[in-house]
Amino acid sequence: MTSNSCNYHLTEKTAKLLATDLLPYKESAGPQTKEFLQKVIDVLMDFVRATNDRNEKVLDFHHPEEMFRILDLDIPEKGLPLQQLIKDCETTLKYQVKTGHPRFFNQLSCGLDLVSMAGEWLTATANTNMFTYEIAPVFILMERVVLTHMRELIGWNGGDSILAPGGSISNLYAFLAARHKMFPGYKEKGSSVIPGELVMFTSDQSHYSVKSCASVGGLGTDNCVMVPSDLNGKMVPRELERLIIERKSKGQIPFFVTATAGTTVLGAFDPINEIADICEKYNCWLHVDAAWGGGLLLSKKYRHPRLSGIERAKSVTWNPHKLMGALLQCSTIHFKEDGLLISCNQMSAEYLFMTDKLYDVQYDTGDKVIQCGRHNDVFKLWLQWRAKGSEGFEKHMDRLMELTEYMVKRLRTMPDKYYLIMEPECVNVSFWYIPRRLRGIIHDAKREAELGKICPILKARMMQSGTLMVGYQPDDRRPNFFRSIISSAAVTEGDVDFMLAEFDRLGQDL
Amino acid sequence: MTSNSCNYHLTEKTAKLLATDLLPYKESAGPQTKEFLQKVIDVLMDFVRATNDRNEKVLDFHHPEEMFRILDLDIPEKGLPLQQLIKDCETTLKYQVKTGHPRFFNQLSCGLDLVSMAGEWLTATANTNMFTYEIAPVFILMERVVLTHMRELIGWNGGDSILAPGGSISNLYAFLAARHKMFPGYKEKGSSVIPGELVMFTSDQSHYSVKSCASVGGLGTDNCVMVPSDLNGKMVPRELERLIIERKSKGQIPFFVTATAGTTVLGAFDPINEIADICEKYNCWLHVDAAWGGGLLLSKKYRHPRLSGIERAKSVTWNPHKLMGALLQCSTIHFKEDGLLISCNQMSAEYLFMTDKLYDVQYDTGDKVIQCGRHNDVFKLWLQWRAKGSEGFEKHMDRLMELTEYMVKRLRTMPDKYYLIMEPECVNVSFWYIPRRLRGIIHDAKREAELGKICPILKARMMQSGTLMVGYQPDDRRPNFFRSIISSAAVTEGDVDFMLAEFDRLGQDL
Repeated sequence: MTSNSCNYHLTEKTAKLLATDLLPYKESAGPQTKEFLQKVIDVLMDFVRATNDRNEKVLDFHHPEEMFRILDLDIPEKGLPLQQLIKDCETTLKYQVKTGHPRFFNQLSCGLDLVSMAGEWLTATANTNMFTYEIAPVFILMERVVLTHMRELIGWNGGDSILAPGGSISNLYAFLAARHKMFPGYKEKGSSVIPGELVMFTSDQSHYSVKSCASVGGLGTDNCVMVPSDLNGKMVPRELERLIIERKSKGQIPFFVTATAGTTVLGAFDPINEIADICEKYNCWLHVDAAWGGGLLLSKKYRHPRLSGIERAKSVTWNPHKLMGALLQCSTIHFKEDGLLISCNQMSAEYLFMTDKLYDVQYDTGDKVIQCGRHNDVFKLWLQWRAKGSEGFEKHMDRLMELTEYMVKRLRTMPDKYYLIMEPECVNVSFWYIPRRLRGIIHDAKREAELGKICPILKARMMQSGTLMVGYQPDDRRPNFFRSIISSAAVTEGDVDFMLAEFDRLGQDL
Repeated sequence: MTSNSCNYHLTEKTAKLLATDLLPYKESAGPQTKEFLQKVIDVLMDFVRATNDRNEKVLDFHHPEEMFRILDLDIPEKGLPLQQLIKDCETTLKYQVKTGHPRFFNQLSCGLDLVSMAGEWLTATANTNMFTYEIAPVFILMERVVLTHMRELIGWNGGDSILAPGGSISNLYAFLAARHKMFPGYKEKGSSVIPGELVMFTSDQSHYSVKSCASVGGLGTDNCVMVPSDLNGKMVPRELERLIIERKSKGQIPFFVTATAGTTVLGAFDPINEIADICEKYNCWLHVDAAWGGGLLLSKKYRHPRLSGIERAKSVTWNPHKLMGALLQCSTIHFKEDGLLISCNQMSAEYLFMTDKLYDVQYDTGDKVIQCGRHNDVFKLWLQWRAKGSEGFEKHMDRLMELTEYMVKRLRTMPDKYYLIMEPECVNVSFWYIPRRLRGIIHDAKREAELGKICPILKARMMQSGTLMVGYQPDDRRPNFFRSIISSAAVTEGDVDFMLAEFDRLGQDL
């Protein structure tokens, strides 16, 4: 914003106006207000166009210090004119990463679903809070419809659900409900009501938010036991049982087991049915973290065996902002038993959630949540579901999996250049790129270490060239490796081909 | 949506298209995509116009069962055409409450700041996640700039902050950081590291989310001690000290005190300096919940004495989506000490937050939060601050207080019709409306009970007439009473006059 140029010009008169010359400050300001908002939309429309243009870069990378120099981020003493605000919008998007670009394979949330985006625009304009029917009547009913439908897809009749700000908070809701249900006095008395320490279990591949529950909830992370997983990243049920017995023998109280349906890195699905058997045997609450893999519930082809047994869980996290492509954020937490959310979380704030209203207050959600105010995350999802239909979502899932299979097939045709780490169960493809000097030699720990070292360098080249983004990370048994995610409707076979060619262009000399 | 009419017509060809006929599904679909999005914007522009039109109703009330009949909320098997989606948007807004209408006095978050709204539109289109600089470079830097500036307004150099999904979660962050700082082993070992129960303190007027921390964190709500407040709703410091001593004598460990700067109902400000003295004496962490009153930090006129001493706190919650009028959600939590957020919340998920990236990873925020993914709540606030300048925000605060004083003055001129419960310190005005039959009689407990009974009836009439929304609630010393909030830039003296006249029109016969 050091340059003064802006490609989006307001009329001369409007350009110099201030925000206080618009509605609601001046009653006659309708036309200028509309002109200003429309110009913002013009900026956004061009970003949408650029996002969908393969000739445009995914990003224009600059280091933070450099970015601070390029941008004018200052908070001024006096308000800036409308034309400057338009320029601010333009510049912001110029340096923003296009997460909806067909060559963005970097996160579990990729893509820019335009119906969901339109929904989020409306959500902003409606600017309401989801705590009561009183001020969000339509959205509260939509939430009921959508969440009931999602519970049916899990395989439940009845139950209760809520939209939460991200999968981590959704998992926390599950943890809290489990503790409350199994130790009803805990809410008021805390840990003093039980004769021992509570212990929870999750796989060593699970999302770190599960462990975070143990910290937030006061158990301590040492009481979140990491159950070993097999070579495919799936929790080993007999290890779970062994660890439960071990902890019980120490006088601790196992109470909560999280099975992951779609792990963050490898996309592995824990064997839910076997884990459910163990939970029943040892009286543990089974939570399924399907934040990532939940979308496959929409596909007849891929639901089984991956998510078989999910209906036996007592709670399920499922993030539509991941595989389903809803805009960020859109995360849901579901409970098989109705009434738990309110009994666990209500603080009976009679001053906020009165029961003597003119309408049936069972529709109010404020007292069920740990948030009080809650962003409206349902409209974008509801509108998207209307647009796609359940059939459309099923096609979307099958297409993402088809593209993933295409990518795996392509990798297999180039074993000199690519080392596929495992056959994926989800749209995560884990692999190493092999530069020239490491081709045709034995794949041992030494080569893995070398391949790991090139990941950050190759990623840096990608970002600096701006043509592609694919993530990398180490895990507990490997050095750095690449993990490509195909969760955007924008991706085609051609983009997969481009990705692989680009790795080779940027990395062969490493 | 039972009727087929829609006021916003796409061209005949586009109307029948499906979402899968748009970008990114069809590369040549730019024009149709633009037409569809522009039509959504037309719907939103008309809602903005209606929101700012005093001849339009605030809401069109229907009971939930009736609303279910009026609306078509079904999730279809097959996707619906674009024209239906436009109609869905139109119908949704038709039945949505206009929280930005000048006669909406119902919540702490009122108003529709159009620059903030434009910011939220851009946020939706940029659709990114705030966990790394890698995918949100501009927004991450904006967050730093805005939060640093807010800490300076609190009176701190240095420190650390984060945007969180609502004030309740912000308060939870403070609770967690306090516990972690004072009992470093708690994160790993849980309550077993300390020789007694932790106890926290807050006023009986505080937001219920403070108590919720005790439940979530495993202390139990019985260990959140409610300190009595005076007749103006302010915490009584000597009661705080008495209760700390009482709990200590039982072997419990007082560690966390929340002072509220702007209570939810009465808008009271706890005496921070006196509370800070007690916290120092008894080694307790002082948290100030200024979710509501924090905005007054921007006003030289109103900052003191209300928020005097806030710089002595170790953490402060401040919600720009309240007095500052940023769109929902926009909540911040600030810490005087840097490094606490990361040390408290990091789970060292090396697979997500690598340290071998090409840029300086101190900019990544993912490992500082309990959320992992985090919505971009900063852009709308940053853009709004650019538009208003700090001077503009100060004027906004002073104007809201001026209107509040106007309302109080008007109430005082009509003592037969209105009973002012107390002189407000914030923009909350607490009062009873007195119908004809209760005028000119002694104001005793019996009359209060009668006045309390009419609140729900009068509120129901308001909602059914659709002309006005003002909230009511009981508190611990009174039956139901009205609480009007002036936190919208749309409100004028004329709207206050309208409010009072409308109470009389709708309620005099009660």
